[in-house]
Amino acid sequence: MNDTPLLDYAPLAAALQRFADERDWQRFHTPRNLMLALTGEVGELAEIFQWKSDAECARLADDPAAWMHLNEELADVLLYLVRLAGVLGVDLDHAVRDKLAKNALKYPAPPAR
Amino acid sequence: MNDTPLLDYAPLAAALQRFADERDWQRFHTPRNLMLALTGEVGELAEIFQWKSDAECARLADDPAAWMHLNEELADVLLYLVRLAGVLGVDLDHAVRDKLAKNALKYPAPPAR
Amino acid sequence: MNDTPLLDYAPLAAALQRFADERDWQRFHTPRNLMLALTGEVGELAEIFQWKSDAECARLADDPAAWMHLNEELADVLLYLVRLAGVLGVDLDHAVRDKLAKNALKYPAPPAR
Amino acid sequence: MNDTPLLDYAPLAAALQRFADERDWQRFHTPRNLMLALTGEVGELAEIFQWKSDAECARLADDPAAWMHLNEELADVLLYLVRLAGVLGVDLDHAVRDKLAKNALKYPAPPAR
Repeated sequence: MNDTPLLDYAPLAAALQRFADERDWQRFHTPRNLMLALTGEVGELAEIFQWKSDAECARLADDPAAWMHLNEELADVLLYLVRLAGVLGVDLDHAVRDKLAKNALKYPAPPAR
Repeated sequence: MNDTPLLDYAPLAAALQRFADERDWQRFHTPRNLMLALTGEVGELAEIFQWKSDAECARLADDPAAWMHLNEELADVLLYLVRLAGVLGVDLDHAVRDKLAKNALKYPAPPAR
Repeated sequence: MNDTPLLDYAPLAAALQRFADERDWQRFHTPRNLMLALTGEVGELAEIFQWKSDAECARLADDPAAWMHLNEELADVLLYLVRLAGVLGVDLDHAVRDKLAKNALKYPAPPAR
Repeated sequence: MNDTPLLDYAPLAAALQRFADERDWQRFHTPRNLMLALTGEVGELAEIFQWKSDAECARLADDPAAWMHLNEELADVLLYLVRLAGVLGVDLDHAVRDKLAKNALKYPAPPAR
């Protein structure tokens, strides 16, 4: 496994923990609740793409309201994912480095030509 | 919006880009394809929790095989999310800082007692 | 496989087809678009349950607005599922009978005591 | 709301109830567990489409193994949806008729030309 960190999200995890603490939301943040909330946000993200062609998806940045909406939904998925990993005690940097190492073995790159 | 970065994922985004480039996978990595792949991984993550109690979820770390599986599925969701943001040109650090600022306005913290 | 029909949804499939035809929506109803729309509706359904206890879920019928919302989201998931099967040419009655027969082999019932 | 039934799934709901009863699975079939299981199956369905073009999706019936897999995943989504509605006490025929009536008001058909 690669030893170089690929992801530093400690400030984000801490901000989410503080946000939950200040509102006494820890009691709601069980793994199963957060999994359902993550599913909800993934659904909202999917709705952005559902009736669009690839070309229309590539032009989302041209419409300020659509672009802001896209940014918000991507953020929401990430926020719940980081929170879910946090309450489970999973280190996402470690997890992605491990997974990428496995993927590299599973899907070897063809030799450069 | 907070000016302090909450997330540094540039090395991860670069690793994913390189991984796709080496395998000539960019042509598959359209936003809609990646959205469907993200949905697939979220489904695999949900399956981990589907028949478990909260107490069983809290003990996932005690079973090495279950823990590795959990780490892999969380990683897969993150990998596709980062890749999706990448092909769309969204800066996830910017997006989450913006979203957290909005959340703080929407859900004000009660005064400390 | 069981030969007795378990599901008659021909009137629903026909109603959805007519609804799409009248609005010239067939061109949007590709399998991938419908899959993304189904994901969106599943997300909306998940949001209903995300912060609720099992006891609160069991009392959804007591709140007329929550009950109507639940009915609508369950309906939306079913509508897109039927439409998706329709454009793919899958017979859902045949598919569920076949799957239940496989499930019965995979998970044999314990002998009645 | 339309008074004509669009969907008769009573035999399917009864078969699922009996299947759960025979295996003493009712205790696992809470709304939240079933919602997570539904999410898992939707993910498996999405994986079928993730790297395929619309043209490739239209040819799924030409590959017997792919076709069987598609049928199974569509069936699994439907089975958990029917079971979820069942434990919640929702009548899916009533729910879809009500929702289609609302959709007809929300999206009026253009006049026939």
